[in-house]
Amino acid sequence: MDLVTLLQNAKIYDLEQPRYFGMPIHPAHKPGYYYALHRRHRDTYRPETHDPRSSASGILTMMEHTGTHIDALCHQACSLKLYGDVPVETAETPNGFRKLGIETVPPLVRRGVLLDVAGWKGLARLALKYGISADELKACANAQGVEVKPGDVLLVRTGYDTLWKDETTYLQAAGVSKSGTLWAAEKGVAAVGADNMAWDAPEEIDPETGATLFAHFYLLPKKGIYIIENLRLDELAHDKRWTFAFIGLPMKLQGATGSPLRPIALVQ
Amino acid sequence: MDLVTLLQNAKIYDLEQPRYFGMPIHPAHKPGYYYALHRRHRDTYRPETHDPRSSASGILTMMEHTGTHIDALCHQACSLKLYGDVPVETAETPNGFRKLGIETVPPLVRRGVLLDVAGWKGLARLALKYGISADELKACANAQGVEVKPGDVLLVRTGYDTLWKDETTYLQAAGVSKSGTLWAAEKGVAAVGADNMAWDAPEEIDPETGATLFAHFYLLPKKGIYIIENLRLDELAHDKRWTFAFIGLPMKLQGATGSPLRPIALVQ
Amino acid sequence: MDLVTLLQNAKIYDLEQPRYFGMPIHPAHKPGYYYALHRRHRDTYRPETHDPRSSASGILTMMEHTGTHIDALCHQACSLKLYGDVPVETAETPNGFRKLGIETVPPLVRRGVLLDVAGWKGLARLALKYGISADELKACANAQGVEVKPGDVLLVRTGYDTLWKDETTYLQAAGVSKSGTLWAAEKGVAAVGADNMAWDAPEEIDPETGATLFAHFYLLPKKGIYIIENLRLDELAHDKRWTFAFIGLPMKLQGATGSPLRPIALVQ
Amino acid sequence: MDLVTLLQNAKIYDLEQPRYFGMPIHPAHKPGYYYALHRRHRDTYRPETHDPRSSASGILTMMEHTGTHIDALCHQACSLKLYGDVPVETAETPNGFRKLGIETVPPLVRRGVLLDVAGWKGLARLALKYGISADELKACANAQGVEVKPGDVLLVRTGYDTLWKDETTYLQAAGVSKSGTLWAAEKGVAAVGADNMAWDAPEEIDPETGATLFAHFYLLPKKGIYIIENLRLDELAHDKRWTFAFIGLPMKLQGATGSPLRPIALVQ
Repeated sequence: MDLVTLLQNAKIYDLEQPRYFGMPIHPAHKPGYYYALHRRHRDTYRPETHDPRSSASGILTMMEHTGTHIDALCHQACSLKLYGDVPVETAETPNGFRKLGIETVPPLVRRGVLLDVAGWKGLARLALKYGISADELKACANAQGVEVKPGDVLLVRTGYDTLWKDETTYLQAAGVSKSGTLWAAEKGVAAVGADNMAWDAPEEIDPETGATLFAHFYLLPKKGIYIIENLRLDELAHDKRWTFAFIGLPMKLQGATGSPLRPIALVQ
Repeated sequence: MDLVTLLQNAKIYDLEQPRYFGMPIHPAHKPGYYYALHRRHRDTYRPETHDPRSSASGILTMMEHTGTHIDALCHQACSLKLYGDVPVETAETPNGFRKLGIETVPPLVRRGVLLDVAGWKGLARLALKYGISADELKACANAQGVEVKPGDVLLVRTGYDTLWKDETTYLQAAGVSKSGTLWAAEKGVAAVGADNMAWDAPEEIDPETGATLFAHFYLLPKKGIYIIENLRLDELAHDKRWTFAFIGLPMKLQGATGSPLRPIALVQ
Repeated sequence: MDLVTLLQNAKIYDLEQPRYFGMPIHPAHKPGYYYALHRRHRDTYRPETHDPRSSASGILTMMEHTGTHIDALCHQACSLKLYGDVPVETAETPNGFRKLGIETVPPLVRRGVLLDVAGWKGLARLALKYGISADELKACANAQGVEVKPGDVLLVRTGYDTLWKDETTYLQAAGVSKSGTLWAAEKGVAAVGADNMAWDAPEEIDPETGATLFAHFYLLPKKGIYIIENLRLDELAHDKRWTFAFIGLPMKLQGATGSPLRPIALVQ
Repeated sequence: MDLVTLLQNAKIYDLEQPRYFGMPIHPAHKPGYYYALHRRHRDTYRPETHDPRSSASGILTMMEHTGTHIDALCHQACSLKLYGDVPVETAETPNGFRKLGIETVPPLVRRGVLLDVAGWKGLARLALKYGISADELKACANAQGVEVKPGDVLLVRTGYDTLWKDETTYLQAAGVSKSGTLWAAEKGVAAVGADNMAWDAPEEIDPETGATLFAHFYLLPKKGIYIIENLRLDELAHDKRWTFAFIGLPMKLQGATGSPLRPIALVQ
């Protein structure tokens, strides 16, 4: 069957959380998101002198790391070096990065794999701030009968996506611990993602380097692996869709350190 | 072959123009776009007391009708009625529309058709402000040997996408005239798009209603057909890809009248 | 003595609260205030090729009713009429008001009177949500030995200015009740102000009209009297400065419904 | 006579240019200014269930160096040192400066002196990009019969304030050259200001240091003298008010590098 027909017959899972003022925002990215509708239909409605058409539109104020989004490689550095040993000094400008900005991320059209760790454990959601280990990812993959392959987009479910309207709890969601992140990197994935604010387990500290947010420390500046955050994975999990076509299309916001995203999963 | 494999073997065409302060903006949506990178790597770099990781991010100020984007149905009204005869008064709020906002647009995963009118005429680009007629669209489709079908995303090429860096000229790009828009609607397309600011021919006035921007008047509030603007179509045209899988994933900006978009075309 | 000498010898009281992300914001004006410093000194520092000078600057996102500020007459309407019976429809545009915007407010250079109601009652601050009556204002004025005169700027102290860092409590500050507002209007003052979010007592409802925020209902659209909010009055009160020269210079933000302000009181 | 009476009898000159989208903005501070009125009166007008009161307000996006404004000392550095030899590194944060931010500028209540260089030369305005020398300032002061004294706010008129609606010309306004700036500093003024974008003559380069914008190089980081920009001085000049009380009240935008301002001049 041809691609267009296959796509049109596919079931689409929408992995984006809705965006509105009041959605959960990481403290570092507050106030985060605001939309003001200032051009109203009545403003341009002049049926006597013009025509019956009218138009409305507004203005967005938005940090790029809000809502469902993907991190660009320039978002994180180690010892002031970006991925590929690019010194921060040579890349940072007031209006974004000259190198490794989000505009350099290609459209992500990949095999996707979901590891529903919460479901595998028989939980609605993992414990607050829980860190998922490599062994748990492996065991979950085995139980689901799936294999993570090079180039995949690996999605991990903590169960916190259903708490999108509860910022306080959501910000304490479980995440993936260092060993889990290392395992994902070994598998050679193109990107990872989770239904939480940062992929990482919130308060874990790497004993070796003292780094918080190990995946941010490791995947972006060391491995060139993208991180996708605040995914909605509950429908995929409900239907036990462990593998699928993943499509994520970050905007080419020149020089920005990330992009809001509406990722989808497609299943034949 | 399965969907994932087909997708991974597909050639991807990126239909989004790059986004930066200085890109062409419709006068009604100025200042339009600004990105400020205020959180710099050195700000969080504290290797003695913390760890060698550092982080950078910024703030976007953005009108939703800037760059490559899609219009929500609430963007336009006729006689203060939105699509489905929804009175504007029942839907407009300071923070967006209660109905027909961009968050109601599903992921667009559709057959796409490109009518390269500029190429068919043997021109690098059509004349300034030129209006493409239904007859021309038909003739171009015939010449290309393609048919527009219900549910398609119909893309029309004027040749102005290559002038993205020249705002003055770009804002005077050719567009589709009333007859062309009516023809597209009759075909039952799901969405239309062009490589210009508004799909419509810039200064055309509908003799019947006096309406400017006829497609904005007709497609959104009367027919429920989305409009995609500021597309990059030159690579598709160069490779003579007249049909393809079109994927466009508008963000669920609750209540907003449109969404920036990075559409892609996929060809087996 | 001449004006310049008198002014230079005057003691200046700064009546503005500091502005920062995290200061108390009325829920209707959230997120309210954000400053991003994105142009950093190192960005323009090029001593080899240019000179040793460098420059830094940022971008403000700000609702006009945040921090210490003054309301324009267009900020409030009664039955969709602004002050002077101007119909809202004839004045509102997407970019502000054609009439009665903050740019129409002259520099306020006036006699100021402080009624320190909290101090007069021997309290650090009045009870939460307490409404100050006309009788209390009169009694306080008598006790202080001052008279409110036509054209004055009347400032009332609740004692909540010292809680600027405690948003939850500050938003429940005491205010002036209907009778107090009527009394101020009868005195013919040019403007009123208080050390709280709205001058008005927070939850009071006018039994006659059902209106909340009676002063907003009455002073702006009916009497043309400006309201100044979030003042710092503690130093004036500490020094028992009941009368002074008041200076408030709203920015001419064309069409805006208010302006941030740094008012001062000058005492010989 | 007492201060309040004197002030009330004084003539007030408003030295602020009006603020609106489209006013002249320095290229480094574009897009500069935008006001969106998104909360409209009809949005809160609910006479059946509530009361006849309604409210309107908006959101400002604003660079701090737009319109009539004052520069904070942290706005400029020499060899990455701020005024008082504060290293930039110890002061810059993503949300502004820890030291020498605009919130450290006291209310400016000072003797003001206007040197109307354009008027003294019998010109509506000086030549484009003309640089005013120390000799010219001295001669103008002599001709006007005024003396600049320590602590004064020194205002210099080029005549370009009347071209506020013509950005292209305004951005090429005359300014004060190095010798003029040095003379002002020797006089010990507290602040300088002009009716142009930068006080400095636009394209002058200091032969000694290679610095452009000599006053920005010298007054802020070396001498601690504030610079006020985009003043309206034509009414003062018309009335030949060479000395007056100057009042400028910068907002305490914590950490910001400047503040919009509505300065006034008061004359007995």
